[in-house]
Amino acid sequence: MATVTIWNEFRHEREDEDVAAVYPDGIHKTIADGLSNDKEIDHHVRTATLEEPDHGLTEDVLEETDVLLWWGHEAHDEVDDAVVDRVQERVLEGMGLIVLHSGHYSKPFKRLMGTTCSLQYREDGATERLWVVDPGHPIADGLDESFELPQTEMYGEPFDVPEPDRLVFVSWFEGGEVFRSGCCYRRGSGRLFYFRPGHETYPIYEDDNVRRVLSNAVDWASPTDGSPRTFGEQE
Amino acid sequence: MATVTIWNEFRHEREDEDVAAVYPDGIHKTIADGLSNDKEIDHHVRTATLEEPDHGLTEDVLEETDVLLWWGHEAHDEVDDAVVDRVQERVLEGMGLIVLHSGHYSKPFKRLMGTTCSLQYREDGATERLWVVDPGHPIADGLDESFELPQTEMYGEPFDVPEPDRLVFVSWFEGGEVFRSGCCYRRGSGRLFYFRPGHETYPIYEDDNVRRVLSNAVDWASPTDGSPRTFGEQE
Amino acid sequence: MATVTIWNEFRHEREDEDVAAVYPDGIHKTIADGLSNDKEIDHHVRTATLEEPDHGLTEDVLEETDVLLWWGHEAHDEVDDAVVDRVQERVLEGMGLIVLHSGHYSKPFKRLMGTTCSLQYREDGATERLWVVDPGHPIADGLDESFELPQTEMYGEPFDVPEPDRLVFVSWFEGGEVFRSGCCYRRGSGRLFYFRPGHETYPIYEDDNVRRVLSNAVDWASPTDGSPRTFGEQE
Amino acid sequence: MATVTIWNEFRHEREDEDVAAVYPDGIHKTIADGLSNDKEIDHHVRTATLEEPDHGLTEDVLEETDVLLWWGHEAHDEVDDAVVDRVQERVLEGMGLIVLHSGHYSKPFKRLMGTTCSLQYREDGATERLWVVDPGHPIADGLDESFELPQTEMYGEPFDVPEPDRLVFVSWFEGGEVFRSGCCYRRGSGRLFYFRPGHETYPIYEDDNVRRVLSNAVDWASPTDGSPRTFGEQE
Repeated sequence: MATVTIWNEFRHEREDEDVAAVYPDGIHKTIADGLSNDKEIDHHVRTATLEEPDHGLTEDVLEETDVLLWWGHEAHDEVDDAVVDRVQERVLEGMGLIVLHSGHYSKPFKRLMGTTCSLQYREDGATERLWVVDPGHPIADGLDESFELPQTEMYGEPFDVPEPDRLVFVSWFEGGEVFRSGCCYRRGSGRLFYFRPGHETYPIYEDDNVRRVLSNAVDWASPTDGSPRTFGEQE
Repeated sequence: MATVTIWNEFRHEREDEDVAAVYPDGIHKTIADGLSNDKEIDHHVRTATLEEPDHGLTEDVLEETDVLLWWGHEAHDEVDDAVVDRVQERVLEGMGLIVLHSGHYSKPFKRLMGTTCSLQYREDGATERLWVVDPGHPIADGLDESFELPQTEMYGEPFDVPEPDRLVFVSWFEGGEVFRSGCCYRRGSGRLFYFRPGHETYPIYEDDNVRRVLSNAVDWASPTDGSPRTFGEQE
Repeated sequence: MATVTIWNEFRHEREDEDVAAVYPDGIHKTIADGLSNDKEIDHHVRTATLEEPDHGLTEDVLEETDVLLWWGHEAHDEVDDAVVDRVQERVLEGMGLIVLHSGHYSKPFKRLMGTTCSLQYREDGATERLWVVDPGHPIADGLDESFELPQTEMYGEPFDVPEPDRLVFVSWFEGGEVFRSGCCYRRGSGRLFYFRPGHETYPIYEDDNVRRVLSNAVDWASPTDGSPRTFGEQE
Repeated sequence: MATVTIWNEFRHEREDEDVAAVYPDGIHKTIADGLSNDKEIDHHVRTATLEEPDHGLTEDVLEETDVLLWWGHEAHDEVDDAVVDRVQERVLEGMGLIVLHSGHYSKPFKRLMGTTCSLQYREDGATERLWVVDPGHPIADGLDESFELPQTEMYGEPFDVPEPDRLVFVSWFEGGEVFRSGCCYRRGSGRLFYFRPGHETYPIYEDDNVRRVLSNAVDWASPTDGSPRTFGEQE
């Protein structure tokens, strides 16, 4: 059983009525409900938000966290660098990190990728279809060969990230674009998964397939024991 | 200057009027024209076809070939295994190999990939848009961020190949599918590029962008000197 | 709990007294003992050998096998191509495959790699030290940063395989060579692990660290559900 | 012809007699001599050091630089973050970056890798032998299957970097360690090569094989045209 911490900026939901209508208790609560209600995989779920001391990500919290999910958008710059350092360090030690949608521009993701993580976008509410390009990947467990989200914000290529270790999903957009929507990385002993869907004005995190993906991803990103990471001078 | 051999099955063009109307001298001739007329990159081009002795791929021909292009469709099984052995051996020694469209099911490609190379398809003549997902790759030199082919056969995921070393193009199809359309591999000292476009009933190989890609790919796949590939028992 | 089939050529042990002294019941039995006695991971283990009908690898056996281990050396050519087809097909469907030592030249490995799988070697009985270069990998669970085998056959680079998806071990040899000793691949939905140690005249498979690696590798290579691998014409 | 800028911290050579004896004009001058004297590849070479304004890496200098080499050791922290930003940005735009030896801990390398870049080390002056594990790679052009450096500082695994896109060299050390000594990456449109040899108290950069590698690496890392890196909102 993985201990999961869902981090949410939690701003749009309190500032914008349209967002509050979709996610009245915050995006983190909706994601938490999805993970907590999974009948196949047992997760221990908690949440943390920007306004909490240390953004809710104290050393103790991170120490106990197996997998951290990250949703942010308008306040990336307000995330304290000391917390980013801590998240990076914990990932390298083995904590899983799942970065969601607009989190592509978050400090922890950019720090771990080493690139701008830029992309193209258009907020048009058109249809997205996610294709499984790696049907043997555990993050695809239980999915059909593709699934649709009827209304999404479009993200288009190029996506300025390092070539993924493994690409699980590619999105097709009604407007004519494609996007590498599910990208797996390892950094140090930690597993990272970037998952594109999740805009604040659409109920993406209530979608069954999206919930299946997130639950699978938590399972996949959970730490294994590994062997010692010993560095420095040797005799 | 690379010496290029374009291999074509050359059956459809002689059996089917519709194909002959598009490629009267064979797909190989149209591809050869494109490469020969490139003003930026200088190639020495020749062709070979199934009906020739050794399918035109004698040891001498392969020895002199820097990059081999391969188009086949209905007669994959008629390609002699001894020639496949020879092609594989030359690729491992350093010869480049560019596999086109329905060549995904050719013996040399399946041999070098180790997988079924299966995919989904639909011959509907709808539009394909190829997106450059790796704008830093030399095979994308001189292209825009995407380009369109107004009428193509659709190829859809999953594509049963090993994860590419580097993915250059992803295709968007009007009918709702995506495909990893430009896949780079190295096997031994040889560079391989799979490029999806190229159906026999559409004039794909007259398209300027497609010609740009093939010319770039020949340049990219050309052998480098490397260091010795010495195997066996050591003292 | 994974169902494991250990395949062994089982020739050296019956033909050569020195080998019989080390592996009186066959290499497969010693490997089976190691897996069966693992206290941390529960495996269901059986064995198969060259001389059995279908080399012990009938469709039923392979259908029930989650992970296949493969040891062969002097009789690679005697393995029937129909069985190789079957093994390849099952791997692509999801069965794990662990290839041991001289199995680098086995038909199933060469088939799935698409390369010669050649290397350099010297049978000198000198020391090998395996370093974990990927301490975050589950195959390294519970190991120290390195471990030694006091007497081994040397395998040296270059090793003519595709670049591994992930490299877990690199070997240091007393005589001055290095080797990529633990290489992970995915082909289709199947996970492959090549593990170098295991010569027939040294009791390598009785070594605790080697046993730990094999048990971890079985766990890692076990199939996941994934999503459908549907190919062919679409409406 | 690539325009190359060799950056050197240039401290040890002015503070330590032993280092000055090996590199009287600075490590950068010795590297520059090697590149300038290459008879096979034509480079335009200049140098830059820490004490210069902007560390010699103004926007103009970087704009004109095709490939930047980086040697640093004791003063990594004195490198201004604004210059690191500039280097990162230029790499993502396509500038090649070759990081040497103790540069593994430099700010630009850590920034682009996203990891600690830690390793094990021992300054014992023992022999290193570098094996070419990828004989088809252009960085290995003209080398034998291995080459030796009679006296080096040892670097050992684990090396906390992302899995290389391609691994060219693995080092064997007399004292019993191994190291991934030649690691290729792409970040954005830029090519990165980490090359291990190069300690300040050994004349490593006068070695013919090391010079061959650096010259090949400059050639390999030089920018290609690529296609547009266009990001942001689309209509």
